[in-house]
Amino acid sequence: MGEQPGAVGYPFLKGHGIRNDFVILPDPDGSVHGDLPLERVRALCDRRAGIGGDGVLRVVRRPEAEGGRWFMDYRNADGSLAEMCGNGIRVFGRYLAQAGLVDPATAVEVDTRDGVKVLTFSGGAADGEITVDMGVPRLLGPTEVGVGERRYDALGVDVGNPHAVAFVDDLAEAGTLREAPWHDPAFFPAGVNVEFVVRRGEHHVAMRVHERGSGETEACGTGACAVMVAVAEADGTPPEVDYRIDLLGGTLTIRRTAAGHVLMTGPAVVVAGGTTGL
Amino acid sequence: MGEQPGAVGYPFLKGHGIRNDFVILPDPDGSVHGDLPLERVRALCDRRAGIGGDGVLRVVRRPEAEGGRWFMDYRNADGSLAEMCGNGIRVFGRYLAQAGLVDPATAVEVDTRDGVKVLTFSGGAADGEITVDMGVPRLLGPTEVGVGERRYDALGVDVGNPHAVAFVDDLAEAGTLREAPWHDPAFFPAGVNVEFVVRRGEHHVAMRVHERGSGETEACGTGACAVMVAVAEADGTPPEVDYRIDLLGGTLTIRRTAAGHVLMTGPAVVVAGGTTGL
Repeated sequence: MGEQPGAVGYPFLKGHGIRNDFVILPDPDGSVHGDLPLERVRALCDRRAGIGGDGVLRVVRRPEAEGGRWFMDYRNADGSLAEMCGNGIRVFGRYLAQAGLVDPATAVEVDTRDGVKVLTFSGGAADGEITVDMGVPRLLGPTEVGVGERRYDALGVDVGNPHAVAFVDDLAEAGTLREAPWHDPAFFPAGVNVEFVVRRGEHHVAMRVHERGSGETEACGTGACAVMVAVAEADGTPPEVDYRIDLLGGTLTIRRTAAGHVLMTGPAVVVAGGTTGL
Repeated sequence: MGEQPGAVGYPFLKGHGIRNDFVILPDPDGSVHGDLPLERVRALCDRRAGIGGDGVLRVVRRPEAEGGRWFMDYRNADGSLAEMCGNGIRVFGRYLAQAGLVDPATAVEVDTRDGVKVLTFSGGAADGEITVDMGVPRLLGPTEVGVGERRYDALGVDVGNPHAVAFVDDLAEAGTLREAPWHDPAFFPAGVNVEFVVRRGEHHVAMRVHERGSGETEACGTGACAVMVAVAEADGTPPEVDYRIDLLGGTLTIRRTAAGHVLMTGPAVVVAGGTTGL
């Protein structure tokens, strides 16, 4: 095949979890990207002039004195910093396992700006699903959201970021979601992600999500966790019961432990790798 | 940096011309992709679960007995065959030059389903712009297009595919272009690409385009050629005059030769390369 033009530069990979996609940048000692300028993040995430992604996952090793863990330096596509990303950290774990940097037979601790998260692998390095402990959500109580003139009862749930979960009879009730649903600005002064939920069966729901700042997305890991918690609260479901949550981009399995932690399980895949000079 | 997981599989590159982007698949002897199943094209062009692109450019060498040229096997993102793509063939040429497969100091003949096209490079293998001879457009005469209740005079131009070019006072008149502009179905029984044009200066216009089947796009090479021809006709411009055409995704320079050929010049860049198992 010969040489790969355009293949000068630094290494990258691309991966996704239920169609939430990321550019992965191996940078173990931080020597490749320094502080990773936001212009580079934007160029990489540009879906036409770049590689394309919802964000960048830079892979950095913490010094041994700080635990020696792998740090997920997550950036949004616009270059801004983000603390955590539930789909992103599974893709991050998949990369680590496929690259032989962690052992998928053990619990894997990953450092994030939201603290240390624990990943467990149901399969091997390259197959099976990955579970991440998303911590303990906080119930914010009843609120309302609106689409057009219509108002819906909703439950506020904080999963590191704020969510409002509303049950609907049909996901089409959410409309095109080209505009953000109405929310109570006194309840959510910093805005809110809004989930619309329909029941599909026992411990099985489907959802759509409008993410503040992004519009409707195909997949939102924290949104799926908020939905699971809201449904389990409505159902009075005991701990340790798996819920199936169908999103536009794919399906997650979510359970709440007796200690109140939410465990999110789903696929993660690396689809391509190479080099770029972007 | 070690190994690249996900880097098993076949080689690919990604490139774009004024934000019209493509996955390039080197396959000189046809042994890598066979007849390139449409499922693979769709998987590669998927912007979230794949690499992402408006189409695929498979790079195949014709047998010496058939001229030994490089053949651009172009596929649309949905897997369907396409005859030609003005932005794609520049990216194709950029790849060939950067890979050392052609000499950018000479005119380069590329075989397409629309016949042999000639590329010329203004710079070296990796820099400068690339010119492609788009052949001789055919004037179809006056017609009309519409946005909402409003009708505009338009000129029909065939550049291998059908176009209707309408002058407007402001590109905002075209509206959101979420729906196709109205056209005369008797004039364009197979549908039409519609261009809206404003004058920016002498031999300088800006345009928006609605492509049939795709909606508004940031760049349409044949559309820019149709616009140049319509403007030159309206201006009574002699041959061999360069027009600057501003599209949303970037700028092309287009001229008509004394023989009526349209020469389109623009940038083309390969931004990444590697391997994928998609």
